[in-house]
Amino acid sequence: MSTRRRPSLATPLIDALPASVPFVGPEAVERRRGRPFAARLGANEHGFGPSPKVVDALRAAAEDVWMYGDPEGWDLRSALAEHVGARAENIALGSGIDGLLGLCCRLTLEPGGVAVMPLGGYPTFAYHAAGYGARIERVPYRQDHTAQDRPDLAAMAAQADRTGARLLYLANPDNPMGGYWDAAAIADLIAATPEDRLILLDEAYLETAPPGAAPPLDLARPNLLRLRTFSKAYGLAGLRVGYAIGAAETIAAFDKIRDHFSMGRLAQAGALAALEDQEGLAQSLRRIAGSRDRLAEIAASNGLRPLPSATNFVAMDCGGDGAVARALCAALERRDVFTRVPGAAPLDRCLRVSCGPAAQMELFAEALPGALSDARRECAPAS
Amino acid sequence: MSTRRRPSLATPLIDALPASVPFVGPEAVERRRGRPFAARLGANEHGFGPSPKVVDALRAAAEDVWMYGDPEGWDLRSALAEHVGARAENIALGSGIDGLLGLCCRLTLEPGGVAVMPLGGYPTFAYHAAGYGARIERVPYRQDHTAQDRPDLAAMAAQADRTGARLLYLANPDNPMGGYWDAAAIADLIAATPEDRLILLDEAYLETAPPGAAPPLDLARPNLLRLRTFSKAYGLAGLRVGYAIGAAETIAAFDKIRDHFSMGRLAQAGALAALEDQEGLAQSLRRIAGSRDRLAEIAASNGLRPLPSATNFVAMDCGGDGAVARALCAALERRDVFTRVPGAAPLDRCLRVSCGPAAQMELFAEALPGALSDARRECAPAS
Repeated sequence: MSTRRRPSLATPLIDALPASVPFVGPEAVERRRGRPFAARLGANEHGFGPSPKVVDALRAAAEDVWMYGDPEGWDLRSALAEHVGARAENIALGSGIDGLLGLCCRLTLEPGGVAVMPLGGYPTFAYHAAGYGARIERVPYRQDHTAQDRPDLAAMAAQADRTGARLLYLANPDNPMGGYWDAAAIADLIAATPEDRLILLDEAYLETAPPGAAPPLDLARPNLLRLRTFSKAYGLAGLRVGYAIGAAETIAAFDKIRDHFSMGRLAQAGALAALEDQEGLAQSLRRIAGSRDRLAEIAASNGLRPLPSATNFVAMDCGGDGAVARALCAALERRDVFTRVPGAAPLDRCLRVSCGPAAQMELFAEALPGALSDARRECAPAS
Repeated sequence: MSTRRRPSLATPLIDALPASVPFVGPEAVERRRGRPFAARLGANEHGFGPSPKVVDALRAAAEDVWMYGDPEGWDLRSALAEHVGARAENIALGSGIDGLLGLCCRLTLEPGGVAVMPLGGYPTFAYHAAGYGARIERVPYRQDHTAQDRPDLAAMAAQADRTGARLLYLANPDNPMGGYWDAAAIADLIAATPEDRLILLDEAYLETAPPGAAPPLDLARPNLLRLRTFSKAYGLAGLRVGYAIGAAETIAAFDKIRDHFSMGRLAQAGALAALEDQEGLAQSLRRIAGSRDRLAEIAASNGLRPLPSATNFVAMDCGGDGAVARALCAALERRDVFTRVPGAAPLDRCLRVSCGPAAQMELFAEALPGALSDARRECAPAS
């Protein structure tokens, strides 16, 4: 006789999943510490805040919140289509890029299906892919003569071919390292990808990149989705609006599985106002560029090597292994500064610090020397 | 040789799904008509609007929208737990009940798995269940001596037993007919359900029901989830906040698959303010009750039979078959009044009209006689 065991409510796939969390939120850390952060620089948010026009639009829409949002998101999709040079049928909305990644994994991955991503790339992609039972092939970054750590495009393509991957995930500009490949390199990868493999090109940080990071739209290619968001340069992380751009037939597939009413009324109104305020975006980009320079200065003046950044954060090489960067991150946390460290070696030799207003930069600058001393002391070989 | 066919990007399950839409939104109808509705009474929204305290809270939070929401939703979950008499570990947040239904289907259903629901019940549940490949067993409503159309609990339980169902979906109070079963009847169904079958008890309309519609919480029972929302009586449909209440081990399973950052900052702030404003809720309930009475009067004075309602809408028996009710709905649409008709016979003999402020009720009252004439003329047998 066996011990009685409660029958499972869940599917075998769900039973086998760990209860993992891609990121612990700063609020959870604050609750554990019993003290708020003074500088919130760990989640690549836009600490400069949303544009005043967006705040006005949100406040104006607050009384309409009793109505569901348009499930077709027509006004926002039409405006986005015009903005990027496409048609509304080429645009799908989602709850940030995170939500779209989940839908894309569901569209393409079955248990045992293969997804390729960079080793140390965006953990939320891996979370969703694993959630549909996929096997994830992680390909190490390459470090090249530009002194950037970038995904190894050729190795990723080769690994995808070798494993018969259904999905290839790439962020350009890159998170967590901040570099980027130019349009030609990305276009080569796209051209080399067979048509039964979907490429998810995560362009969350495209607005902050130099010109030339994005290949032209190719809306005749069904196996490519470009993912963009209002969370970063537009400063609306807490509104949850992302969008996918792709061939109409690929975009149409989202309608089979998406939660049609999930994009709320305020989210659509706020994103539309942000898109219409391109001067507000330009100001955000100027602020981010200034803050990026300041972060690089702070890093360099403390003996850390700032990596070139095309994003709204700067990865700083701490000159050791992951233990040093993690100790530094913890020491900064004790000084009320929230930052993060990439999850895999060798990326985890870096501290990742988000751009933000000058006062936040100065809090980081003040905390860094002492935190570095702590970290180096903790990580010094025992004598 | 066969004609060359493009290889599929999607899984076989996705390829086989129709591009169905559970509901067409009123905005899509307005675009097709080229004219807005004057009375928006088809989606069971809260036309009285959110409480002023909630509007204030949303406006105050607008500047914080650059921050992601707390992925643990701790403050809101803690407040909800206190409100319902549970602990935070018994509460999961989701993008409305719709979003939670999708997660629950994903947790429990595989291709070929069986889900039981009432025939004519909430289409979004069926959409999500089908989206995970489930076979849906639909059980007809019963019409009983209380003159309500209600789900047939005994028949649903029997059908679930017969088919080895993994999931049983039930809305109480009921949508689309508006009736309810008392707590004892629901408790009997729960007690009779084997522990490897999850019961989804959709209580979207619980706040508007008479006392005695909800069985006591039983947080020791893993196979029961109670689903509630801020979309109906709290008037926040456009904010997308629902929650599930259940045993901690069942609630924990959501953490394996949910999109952790999907509940935005404004959504959490608005829902928390709504929960704290119980006087605002009480006022909403008084307004809904008054509007429900007015809808019943309007129906009766036009020769329609209003069904008893425990919800924020009234189903009106049009005295014919589905063709009559659909013709009436279309005739009302031509008169700028948005209503809906249930999707399956015999429920589709009814027109479903949402509660709303007096001016909206009067627009409906004015439009109804002419619309009824149109519908009866259209549906009269050819002479």
